[in-house]
Amino acid sequence: MRFGLDVMGGDFAPSATIEGAISALDSIGEGNRIVLLGPEDLIRKELVDRGVGEDRFDISHQPDCIAMDEKPLKALSEKPDSGIAAGFRMLAQGELDAFASAGNSGAMLAGAVTHLKCIPGVIRPCTCAAVPQEEDGAYSVLLDIGTTPDAKPEVMVQFAVIGSIYAKYVLGYADPRVGLMNVGTEDGKGNLQCQSVFPLLKECPHIHFIGNMEPREMFKNRAEVIVADGFVGNILLKEVETFYRLMQKRGISDPLFDRMNYEIYGGSPILGVNAPVFLGHGISSPLAIRNMLLQTKRMCDQGLTEALRKLFAAYVQESEA
Amino acid sequence: MRFGLDVMGGDFAPSATIEGAISALDSIGEGNRIVLLGPEDLIRKELVDRGVGEDRFDISHQPDCIAMDEKPLKALSEKPDSGIAAGFRMLAQGELDAFASAGNSGAMLAGAVTHLKCIPGVIRPCTCAAVPQEEDGAYSVLLDIGTTPDAKPEVMVQFAVIGSIYAKYVLGYADPRVGLMNVGTEDGKGNLQCQSVFPLLKECPHIHFIGNMEPREMFKNRAEVIVADGFVGNILLKEVETFYRLMQKRGISDPLFDRMNYEIYGGSPILGVNAPVFLGHGISSPLAIRNMLLQTKRMCDQGLTEALRKLFAAYVQESEA
Repeated sequence: MRFGLDVMGGDFAPSATIEGAISALDSIGEGNRIVLLGPEDLIRKELVDRGVGEDRFDISHQPDCIAMDEKPLKALSEKPDSGIAAGFRMLAQGELDAFASAGNSGAMLAGAVTHLKCIPGVIRPCTCAAVPQEEDGAYSVLLDIGTTPDAKPEVMVQFAVIGSIYAKYVLGYADPRVGLMNVGTEDGKGNLQCQSVFPLLKECPHIHFIGNMEPREMFKNRAEVIVADGFVGNILLKEVETFYRLMQKRGISDPLFDRMNYEIYGGSPILGVNAPVFLGHGISSPLAIRNMLLQTKRMCDQGLTEALRKLFAAYVQESEA
Repeated sequence: MRFGLDVMGGDFAPSATIEGAISALDSIGEGNRIVLLGPEDLIRKELVDRGVGEDRFDISHQPDCIAMDEKPLKALSEKPDSGIAAGFRMLAQGELDAFASAGNSGAMLAGAVTHLKCIPGVIRPCTCAAVPQEEDGAYSVLLDIGTTPDAKPEVMVQFAVIGSIYAKYVLGYADPRVGLMNVGTEDGKGNLQCQSVFPLLKECPHIHFIGNMEPREMFKNRAEVIVADGFVGNILLKEVETFYRLMQKRGISDPLFDRMNYEIYGGSPILGVNAPVFLGHGISSPLAIRNMLLQTKRMCDQGLTEALRKLFAAYVQESEA
């Protein structure tokens, strides 16, 4: 398999991306290759500086770069020779099996939707985060974490379905429980959005819905899939990151809280499109880049995209029936 | 002044409420009285058990009690001799200067609106929480924390106005800064609600609006007033409480995080109605009850209701002009 990495993506690129890619080599698997997309000279120099032979990687020369603050669609069309634009093109043409970047997240989302398209039946792609649980070193998946604020009820149901498949294939849960993040646990609680989506989740045959849950249950091994609107999910995740950083700053270390470090997962997959894509955190460190690549590999190994396609084919058939 | 306390309100009533009331006596001020509303025999027994003379308090015999899970409006009309119903009646008639309860929050809100009415110009009352800041031992105010999910833009602007008055009069800030809780700091970010309220906040002459803020800035002394929808505010607050409790459970102590303990403030005022009302946390401990009473006293001492009335009179005049 060939995993594409946008060398120029992220605040600390290219040194953090190259270092992360090097550190992922030991776990990327026999016969698999990391394809570095970026300015060739720069990549070679970074590798030489670190005493790493360039034969360890494939290099795809992309002289251009989409900056963090560029307008996504405009940048994608005007910079076909950037890592992000080329990554999606190569992925769509089968020259890559997966693509990852810690660069411009808008461009990553736009590229995923325009080049790869949504899996038939998926209304909108989504992004997710891993939330550490108190017991068993477990992680749950929180989604959506920002792709779709003001998500319609039918889109939120799809978050639940996609999250369940992710929890099953990538996190290894046989029968993941789905909770709806809300301000109370009783049926009928919450804002209009939660009230509308609740009955749809209850009826959905593809998930194991356990009802509403409150933030206090977020780390309590209560649900493996935590569903929220893109606005609320983003706020929840950013508050977790805030606490983690405050603790680091204040010199507090703790096995549970330490697992809130984004570097452990390195970012978020873009779920619901026709190929494995991973969106790294803007501030990605080499460790985060390494873990982003290994998560991407895991998505490929576990056949996540295929599983999503299969389920949504059934989903579409049912809605048409 | 006379501060009414619903003796039967809260999960640990009446022992926690009586103990809290006793511990507040030393700070309640010369000439002020705490009025205990509840079953007379029970109150007397609790006082005797603790060796406290009943002359230290005024007792208002209310034999009935509204349970935590009763339907608010029904309970208020069917139980006029409950602490909550009587408290609002006495407050409306001037027999009390303020009223506090850690009981049924729906009944407290309904009682406040039906008995006291909103201050002219206020569309809906709101509730708020104190959020500790990293520097100077400061607290900011977060509102709304649950009264109004799906708040309309004009209601959210009123949260900002009410929060600013609260920050000025109760927290002592001369010129409190207002931030809109959002998923990004740039103008135009967020869900439809944030996008709609942003320009209204920018134009509002009664507040010092500094723009959008993210959860990472929540503890950073960036804004003294943090505005959110009742749904989002409740989620944010519950996540803070979750972290505080996780830390307690895991034996971690830290000056900043310890200030996230709800007991320090004891609950939330109900802001925007015609008299000072305080809603305690359901799980209120004696310390929380004590601090709830002292916060209530502070609201009275600082003339918060009068200040709100004055500002909203100007506000109404402007909207009519």
